[in-house]
Amino acid sequence: MAKAITDFSKLCVHSITTKPWPIEKSAREFSDAGITGITVWRDALTGRNITATGKMLKDLNLEVVSLCRGGFFPSVNIADRQKAVEDNLKAIDEAFELGAPMVVLVCGATPGQPLSESRKQIQEGIVACLAHAEAAKVKLAIEPLHPMYAGDRSAINTLEQANDMAETIQSPWVGIALDVYHLWWDPNLETQIKRCGQNDHLTAFHICDWKSPTLDMLNDRGLMGEGCINIKQIRGWVEEAGFNGFNEVEIFSNLYWSQDQDEFLRKIKDAYLKYS
Amino acid sequence: MAKAITDFSKLCVHSITTKPWPIEKSAREFSDAGITGITVWRDALTGRNITATGKMLKDLNLEVVSLCRGGFFPSVNIADRQKAVEDNLKAIDEAFELGAPMVVLVCGATPGQPLSESRKQIQEGIVACLAHAEAAKVKLAIEPLHPMYAGDRSAINTLEQANDMAETIQSPWVGIALDVYHLWWDPNLETQIKRCGQNDHLTAFHICDWKSPTLDMLNDRGLMGEGCINIKQIRGWVEEAGFNGFNEVEIFSNLYWSQDQDEFLRKIKDAYLKYS
Repeated sequence: MAKAITDFSKLCVHSITTKPWPIEKSAREFSDAGITGITVWRDALTGRNITATGKMLKDLNLEVVSLCRGGFFPSVNIADRQKAVEDNLKAIDEAFELGAPMVVLVCGATPGQPLSESRKQIQEGIVACLAHAEAAKVKLAIEPLHPMYAGDRSAINTLEQANDMAETIQSPWVGIALDVYHLWWDPNLETQIKRCGQNDHLTAFHICDWKSPTLDMLNDRGLMGEGCINIKQIRGWVEEAGFNGFNEVEIFSNLYWSQDQDEFLRKIKDAYLKYS
Repeated sequence: MAKAITDFSKLCVHSITTKPWPIEKSAREFSDAGITGITVWRDALTGRNITATGKMLKDLNLEVVSLCRGGFFPSVNIADRQKAVEDNLKAIDEAFELGAPMVVLVCGATPGQPLSESRKQIQEGIVACLAHAEAAKVKLAIEPLHPMYAGDRSAINTLEQANDMAETIQSPWVGIALDVYHLWWDPNLETQIKRCGQNDHLTAFHICDWKSPTLDMLNDRGLMGEGCINIKQIRGWVEEAGFNGFNEVEIFSNLYWSQDQDEFLRKIKDAYLKYS
């Protein structure tokens, strides 16, 4: 089991977690709350000068942990796959401008196309972005998604698959983002985390909780401690595997988004210390 | 890929698939439609003489494929675990009276209890039922459930886990029920089906489809062909592994349950020939 967390030096919050706030407001509030990291979702950058936004975050002493998200590589037609690659090159550029060292990939899946084919296309898509990633010094982090998203969001659904793919691609510019929400149920998780760490592929760690019942497959994530995920145990495995980056709070929640975000941020800090 | 299906000699429909109908009505309609098997859900037996219901099904030339469902073994307290075992013994008795050769197990999970502990309790629960199962000549079929049910319905979420457990228990009275809805996404599925067949543990095969989007985590299953599951390919793997039992249509669907059930049954037969 991981050691208790006693401060906020490793706490990162995703911009989407406080979705009702524009990025400028989130940044000020996070900074005032003593939070030290932020992962920026691309929609939060709409209409902004990205370089200036990156500077604003830095001036508030926020470390930009990742840009979310690239990916969505598979498609039944080649033109759309090419468009997806172009969008990922753009995401790499945006990460560079923002000062983010990493783009998180929701790899994609296309209903009606076999998962095996989608997996091949994902790998091809990532490989097609590698030179650009290296030039920008921006890592691409494969994020395995929960199997309930295999139909239309990601054909990469276990850490084992992400490990396989990262090992096959074998590039210092490819890593893996581990989200407890997607992977907590996997009986092979501890083993695969060790493997991921040994390969030096573990580049991001996302936390939240799984509620029972879960009312919405996308936007009913729980605050740490509200659900059944063994977050502390998984953090222990992750740290034993050599990870010493940020613990990123990524909560999509219609419930919390409808509430006061200042209060929500206080709850996040509290839950972070108690249940992460 | 499996050979095309050209008749209904292996078609079984679950009583819950046509939930608005009482079991007597389902049985008559299934029989009139040339369907040859039925899996009976326990709730459909409420208030009935079970032996007489079994005879009614037999008289209509319906083979009783399974009784659904036992399981739900884990609990944080021993009294509830004991109660769960007693309920499973009762389910075995009901299967015997009905003439069902098998009870399907939704193994259970308890929010707040580690999955590893729940898995231990599931195994203990099954073992506690074995003598009774043998005496009644009723098999217990472990059904791995989709990882989205790991929070509160089943700590057994992959065929690999079910195979592990069935191998450990090593009893001719323990088998595995494979439902494409729960397992289609698993990259190791083909390998684990082979292993399951080699062990002679593959005792049931359930079909339906996964819709994108899925609007309800429990009751929005699709008719075969409406979603993205590679049903024919999986049926091919299952048959290559030596399975020659029924293809059981198990669809929970608020949508279809709200519609005309005669029409739904026609659609099932049509989809069965085209997409299974």
